[in-house]
Amino acid sequence: MPVPDCAPGFALIRMLRAGICNTDLELQRGYYDFRGVPGHEFAGVVVGSGKRVVGEINLACGRCEFCAMDLGRHCLDRSVLGIVKHPGAFANYFTLPEANLHPIPDEISDEEAVFIEPLAAACEILEQVTIPAGAEVAVLGDGKLGLLIAQTLRAHQLDVIVYGRHEAKLDIARRAGARVSIAVDPPLAKYPFVIESTGSAAGLRQAVGMARPRGTVVLKSTVHGEVSLDTAPVVVHEITLIGSRCGRFAPAIELLRQRKVDVSAMIAARFPLSEAPAAFAEAARPGVLKVILTND
Amino acid sequence: MPVPDCAPGFALIRMLRAGICNTDLELQRGYYDFRGVPGHEFAGVVVGSGKRVVGEINLACGRCEFCAMDLGRHCLDRSVLGIVKHPGAFANYFTLPEANLHPIPDEISDEEAVFIEPLAAACEILEQVTIPAGAEVAVLGDGKLGLLIAQTLRAHQLDVIVYGRHEAKLDIARRAGARVSIAVDPPLAKYPFVIESTGSAAGLRQAVGMARPRGTVVLKSTVHGEVSLDTAPVVVHEITLIGSRCGRFAPAIELLRQRKVDVSAMIAARFPLSEAPAAFAEAARPGVLKVILTND
Repeated sequence: MPVPDCAPGFALIRMLRAGICNTDLELQRGYYDFRGVPGHEFAGVVVGSGKRVVGEINLACGRCEFCAMDLGRHCLDRSVLGIVKHPGAFANYFTLPEANLHPIPDEISDEEAVFIEPLAAACEILEQVTIPAGAEVAVLGDGKLGLLIAQTLRAHQLDVIVYGRHEAKLDIARRAGARVSIAVDPPLAKYPFVIESTGSAAGLRQAVGMARPRGTVVLKSTVHGEVSLDTAPVVVHEITLIGSRCGRFAPAIELLRQRKVDVSAMIAARFPLSEAPAAFAEAARPGVLKVILTND
Repeated sequence: MPVPDCAPGFALIRMLRAGICNTDLELQRGYYDFRGVPGHEFAGVVVGSGKRVVGEINLACGRCEFCAMDLGRHCLDRSVLGIVKHPGAFANYFTLPEANLHPIPDEISDEEAVFIEPLAAACEILEQVTIPAGAEVAVLGDGKLGLLIAQTLRAHQLDVIVYGRHEAKLDIARRAGARVSIAVDPPLAKYPFVIESTGSAAGLRQAVGMARPRGTVVLKSTVHGEVSLDTAPVVVHEITLIGSRCGRFAPAIELLRQRKVDVSAMIAARFPLSEAPAAFAEAARPGVLKVILTND
């Protein structure tokens, strides 16, 4: 790939490490209308200054009502790194607005910094929902996002139980102090807070069933296509469903800097950028956690 | 029907006026597992004291965690007047716990008092969701519930626009100061608050589409069976969906007492209790507003 042009206000970034996310796999499957270089989880170095950086992935217009509310993540005219109208980080070089960049603290390695973007998405839950100290929170799904969510909620002293299917993955949640439950149907109408991070329609239906009356279900994962859902229990039990996507980077950087979240156990494999197709194939295998692309 | 026995703590009530609700029509169609006398919107008189009363419809156990939170409406062991395990108000006489009763202020007629129960359901929205003063709220549906909701929100000085299909019904909302839009596809991603009160799966999907990023959609109407819903926009736009059902009676009584809501225009027909089958047939005709049963 040629080195891209760098518009005023933008930084040219050399990729050091990047992570393959489920969204990247979905891009590959053609779910989004995007052609070009994917990749939005990265640690890089700014060409010129040599600073190690991560970058928020939404390129906001800076002028609309959402930008005015400091919600550039919802800018109506946004591009998104490697997802919408802006070439992504799975390349030697790519660009981002300087305003999107955050320096990586010395305490955080390049590889760990790759997790800042998805960890910010986990932190977003606590930005949207006020969960009282000590409250019981059920996390549905033991994939990459579910494990980051479980660890984030544990770092905030919440009482977390993770429902999953893989002993080895649940161990990561267990080491963070979460209770875990493997391959068991979760109880009905029990939890004040349920986080859906399975990415499946069945998971969404299950999450609604697990919430107790007046409970909150956070939808963290996107399910493609239409989902069949019985909305009657949502109304009768006055359940709140909250969609949740990207988050601010600052809280995620802080969690990693203070070692309150351990992401190293979540790395399944490393591939050089030149072997990206093999890396994608590995990431697409069921049950595989984070696959990292390296560019030394 | 024989006069029912009246257990300790219960009041024997003679029905004066009662209203037919969509839920009653659904009971008739067999949607709920209930056999017996339906009816949960009523004005009555307590046998003995002669007091005019309305009554909250959820019969709570008084001992569970929800009762302890003053949320008997979500009591896990509740009966519901005319809906779940407790004979309803479409009879000369029925019973309710004395704790459920509210005196009807002199300013409110028997017929108007019939609307206190559904009006309380409209008020429930403001108990669950903090809507800032002057905020724009779209109400989807111009049926009985939609019109009560529009009037309730207008009584709280909100900027209401009602999307409906019937000029005559929308006039009721217009007289309350709401803007109205007839038979027009609502704009996409525009409103910070959307209230779904169509009772249709299509309405639910439309409501989600109308909400702007970080917006709130209140689900007021129950759609039976599974609804196909694309949850991706909910996640991407971080939309909040809130199920909403019964409400406390006190705010509804106050709205009616202060004449802030006009329910008289919403009465479509009156039938004596002895002609209940004809009343149900009339209430089931598309577009018909409130049908009242009388018992003089």
